Amino acid sequence: MKQTLTQIHPMWENFPSVKKELQDVLLIIQDSLQANDKEVEKALLDMFRAGGKMLRPAFALIIGEFYPHDNSDLKHIAAAVEMLHTATLVHDDIIDDSPERRHAPSIQSRFGKDVAAYAGDYLFAATFKTLAYHTNDMTLVRQATSLLEAILTGELTQRTNHYDRHMTLASYKEQIAGKTAALFVLSAQLGAANGKAPESFMNLVSDFAYNVGMAFQILDDILDYQSTDRDLGKPTLQDVREGVYSAPLIIAMQNNNDIQALLKKREQITNEESLALRDMVVASGAVDDAIALASEYTNNALEQLDKLPEGEAKDTLVAISEALLERAN
Amino acid sequence: MKQTLTQIHPMWENFPSVKKELQDVLLIIQDSLQANDKEVEKALLDMFRAGGKMLRPAFALIIGEFYPHDNSDLKHIAAAVEMLHTATLVHDDIIDDSPERRHAPSIQSRFGKDVAAYAGDYLFAATFKTLAYHTNDMTLVRQATSLLEAILTGELTQRTNHYDRHMTLASYKEQIAGKTAALFVLSAQLGAANGKAPESFMNLVSDFAYNVGMAFQILDDILDYQSTDRDLGKPTLQDVREGVYSAPLIIAMQNNNDIQALLKKREQITNEESLALRDMVVASGAVDDAIALASEYTNNALEQLDKLPEGEAKDTLVAISEALLERAN
Repeated sequence: MKQTLTQIHPMWENFPSVKKELQDVLLIIQDSLQANDKEVEKALLDMFRAGGKMLRPAFALIIGEFYPHDNSDLKHIAAAVEMLHTATLVHDDIIDDSPERRHAPSIQSRFGKDVAAYAGDYLFAATFKTLAYHTNDMTLVRQATSLLEAILTGELTQRTNHYDRHMTLASYKEQIAGKTAALFVLSAQLGAANGKAPESFMNLVSDFAYNVGMAFQILDDILDYQSTDRDLGKPTLQDVREGVYSAPLIIAMQNNNDIQALLKKREQITNEESLALRDMVVASGAVDDAIALASEYTNNALEQLDKLPEGEAKDTLVAISEALLERAN
Repeated sequence: MKQTLTQIHPMWENFPSVKKELQDVLLIIQDSLQANDKEVEKALLDMFRAGGKMLRPAFALIIGEFYPHDNSDLKHIAAAVEMLHTATLVHDDIIDDSPERRHAPSIQSRFGKDVAAYAGDYLFAATFKTLAYHTNDMTLVRQATSLLEAILTGELTQRTNHYDRHMTLASYKEQIAGKTAALFVLSAQLGAANGKAPESFMNLVSDFAYNVGMAFQILDDILDYQSTDRDLGKPTLQDVREGVYSAPLIIAMQNNNDIQALLKKREQITNEESLALRDMVVASGAVDDAIALASEYTNNALEQLDKLPEGEAKDTLVAISEALLERAN
């Protein structure tokens, strides 16, 4: 009863060759998942089918295009980074008690935290298996494991900063560098390495991916202050209630007594208060400041792209990076 | 403020050279853990310090002895398998809601399920990093990832069998083969591969490790029917309440209406009823049958050992295997 994974995020409509390859990546993921527990397997497939943006595998694929590469291995590597990303999402939902993920009930809300814990672990295992079988370079595998460690250290840093009403923008940057940018960097490096790209290219695309990852996360965090629940498929400012503070709030809360007073209520913040908090943050101008911060990263990313050889791959990377920035305006 | 990990399980007192190496392994683990969140780092160190048996790293070390090997890499590999084992324990405790682990509060009970999820993930990452940096053979890394997948599939199978009052012994064997024996096999293979052992030796020790792993898990499950809480550091028959049935119960519950009636209460079984259940299982003779089953595996394991070249390494393996069997008598 094999179903086919075909739902690709609409952002790829204008990039038909990327869209086609992402469809292949989803088929590879489908073939990789043999979780033995049919219910869990189906829940995982549902997550992949739900149509995330697949930015990370797309970066691996597009960056791989710059040098002669093994197309099959490259797609498997792209599948691995998407599985790794999804593994962290499944475990994130345990932490956040999130009822929803990608507009569908989260695995933890459907099956409980126990299944979510194993399902995430299973995806980690599938990730490493895929990487090990489609990479011939031990150095690369080593680098991948170091970055994975950085990602998880980033998740733990987030905990250290929980409910810290004096958390700095520097701590926030460090946190999202580990939590988000590191996986973008890994995707870029794996893509480049499959094409046996020289070190200078590797450094350039790592730098690009880091900056795109930072911009992407900041813009994602800004969305909480701009959208209704329905747009995002998750509850209003749930993160704030859980003690996870992001750029707009961190900028706004410095020296703002009203916001500080609300934050002191920690998990007791009501839905109404969180809407009031959102209004205060917007009124303070902090959302605009956060957008400006994201733009800095996007501009840094575009500067790196300028140095790449002309061609379709470069054009696609520029278009995606610009589309990511537009999202917030 | 470096503390030294020195507590080694008393079972190694009679094997001073193994004990010494296991101490080195603990120091490697301590150096590998830089979790950034000091509280979590300490909680993880506490788990390693609490003095588990360290059977898996010991097997890797002893099996590595049969061929010329790189002693430093071998110890790192032993550290990796112990970290992998501990990662699965940390996540197991999320599932079981276990208040205790190795006579100390479990990570999930100390810090919540969220930290336990990340802490386990972090250990997985540290495991792969250690393996990647101390293995030069891509084939081996691939094999390790396949076995990890088998282990996690085993965990998910356990869920499929939850509360199945007609679960067969065959399902149980399949479940523990994935959950326990696979990691014993991986430890043996990693040890053998470090010494560049020939395939025949690799097969022999894999076979040995599989059988020891099976015997070990069955005996561990039997302990629930023989010991008081205090001996084991975990609550009475908690597994049964969670719907996880093991050999003695599976053997006893076939065609036993009293046991079937109790099991129908699922998570509602009271502490008194679980003591009554234990008595019924013991009275049925199922514990003895389970011991006989474990002995079969131990005998298979010893048969494989017979074929190994004489020497200290072989003697140690035989002594440990026999000690593991004695545990239940």
